[in-house]
Amino acid sequence: MNPTTTDVMNALKNVMDPELHRSVVELNMVRDLSVNDSIVSFTLALTIPECPLRDQLVEDARTAVQALPGVQDVRITLGAMTEEERRAVLGGKDQPPLAAGHNQIDRVIAVMSGKGGVGKSLITGLLAAALKRASYRVGVLDADITGPSIPKLFGVNGPLKGGAHGIEPAQSRTGIELMSINFLLPDEGEAVIWRGPLISGAIKQFWGDVQWGTLDYLLVDLPPGTSDAALTVMQSLPINGILMVTTPQELASMVVRKAVKMTQALNMPILGVIENMAGFVAPDTGKRYEIFGPSHAAEVAALAGAPLLARLPIDPQIASQCDLGNIETVNLPELQTCIDALK
Amino acid sequence: MNPTTTDVMNALKNVMDPELHRSVVELNMVRDLSVNDSIVSFTLALTIPECPLRDQLVEDARTAVQALPGVQDVRITLGAMTEEERRAVLGGKDQPPLAAGHNQIDRVIAVMSGKGGVGKSLITGLLAAALKRASYRVGVLDADITGPSIPKLFGVNGPLKGGAHGIEPAQSRTGIELMSINFLLPDEGEAVIWRGPLISGAIKQFWGDVQWGTLDYLLVDLPPGTSDAALTVMQSLPINGILMVTTPQELASMVVRKAVKMTQALNMPILGVIENMAGFVAPDTGKRYEIFGPSHAAEVAALAGAPLLARLPIDPQIASQCDLGNIETVNLPELQTCIDALK
Repeated sequence: MNPTTTDVMNALKNVMDPELHRSVVELNMVRDLSVNDSIVSFTLALTIPECPLRDQLVEDARTAVQALPGVQDVRITLGAMTEEERRAVLGGKDQPPLAAGHNQIDRVIAVMSGKGGVGKSLITGLLAAALKRASYRVGVLDADITGPSIPKLFGVNGPLKGGAHGIEPAQSRTGIELMSINFLLPDEGEAVIWRGPLISGAIKQFWGDVQWGTLDYLLVDLPPGTSDAALTVMQSLPINGILMVTTPQELASMVVRKAVKMTQALNMPILGVIENMAGFVAPDTGKRYEIFGPSHAAEVAALAGAPLLARLPIDPQIASQCDLGNIETVNLPELQTCIDALK
Repeated sequence: MNPTTTDVMNALKNVMDPELHRSVVELNMVRDLSVNDSIVSFTLALTIPECPLRDQLVEDARTAVQALPGVQDVRITLGAMTEEERRAVLGGKDQPPLAAGHNQIDRVIAVMSGKGGVGKSLITGLLAAALKRASYRVGVLDADITGPSIPKLFGVNGPLKGGAHGIEPAQSRTGIELMSINFLLPDEGEAVIWRGPLISGAIKQFWGDVQWGTLDYLLVDLPPGTSDAALTVMQSLPINGILMVTTPQELASMVVRKAVKMTQALNMPILGVIENMAGFVAPDTGKRYEIFGPSHAAEVAALAGAPLLARLPIDPQIASQCDLGNIETVNLPELQTCIDALK
């Protein structure tokens, strides 16, 4: 019986890159895998072609696949990763950031929650649009590498261009500078199946290798959780303050409390708390429904030692504008207190 | 000028554990830090007290802190981590799982979305309760380490007890076996500020070191994203199938598509798609509002090559029961198709 490509990939999962200590499968080094009867062929894309330990790596890969039942011959071609793949894999470790030295960014604000689906990206986008309307120079760094929402909210797609000192960010219709992993993917639905070090590497690149230029505000849209992305943003970026987003449900506020604890453990100032999905107002009757229960925002604000800046109701109109990529057309006067808090 | 504890922690961030290649701060080894004028004192909690490289570690820590301006003396006490901390840090690498050999689990089903806040935990809990009502033996493994919702939904708290072969899971009121990081924390609002390897280690422990016993179904509640937690569950647990949760908003379904792509890349069968938050029915008028826009569930199901099993509307009653820890009292007939799909 001949092995399947799945068998081969499973065998290769145990082959570690001797320098990066991670499997060649996880590092996406295995390319063009084919199995013809008993002959297995594939390319090993090395981080650098002259990789000093490549003989060991090739030998390990050959041994692992050869051990599968039914394998007669293993044909390995050597390849090299592109510059971008290599930087993602190495987490930008091998070279100093280029663009950072040319950037001048006045204030870096992270939008966080801990909880998913509370509207961090929505609020990031609305605030960026409001700041832009107030004539500030604004950028948005989408630090949600596996579930980025910023490109869709602004209706902006890649690809990006290279500039003199690094990657040029995309520009929104009103001139907000945007950086998101989705600008680098062939299709917005493509999965980014990366472990933490690659996630962190990408975020560091979005900070250090992007030509942000001169900005008054860079808003950082964090993913859910208190793991790699949040840690990297707080430890590697010069964050001036954090906006914490919550929703009424007690379940959500419990997770938001964890995010507050994290910011406190890392000595990050919380500028304020914003409650999203604070009820639904029926457009026909004007009646308000507490869909997700009574507010816990005041408790979260007290724990955070920060003001409750705004409470935003669910508005199907906004959801629809966001799905159309028109977030910049939404202007919520309730957000003025947030804008003031960022100064 | 005397250094602050923040200065000391920042200096210690550069001190690496020689075996784990991670900073002593990240590993939470630094305890009881105090600065009295120019004297800095702290405890280094070692993974094992007889750590062979401990002299180097202590020397590195002393050198790093001594280099701070204003430091006259550095007093380091040696301590040891608890068994639990140690296992979390080592990701269970140093010992074979104990309990796994005694467990007999018929079907392992992961509930996934990619997107946060769509109701993965809600659906996991509702399905577990429904399976239990149908007299199956059921467990829930909460793989959301930084934002766990399962304990609150079931109204169950820790602490857990140790058993003959490993950790005994908690039991819900109707007898569902539960395992979640929150059972191990002193307070449910405590943050778990861990990078990927610790997240993965915890999930592996929840599988291998927990006395699940004999189960018909183990449901795994995944966090958002396609990074460490999802990878570890798919690569290290014997998953029989995946339920994919989505919501109407196009923004959400774009991220869910990424999760579908991930499951396909890892050859995981998707058993079906469930749409949550599919509109809101006003309890007083019975009128339905498409709060998050029109459904995209059929497209997600087509991409997944799996049936659309259920569409659940937003129900404030359910949210309220969940906040009270009464998820087992909620019985949705719409979920019967999901139960059938798990067989």
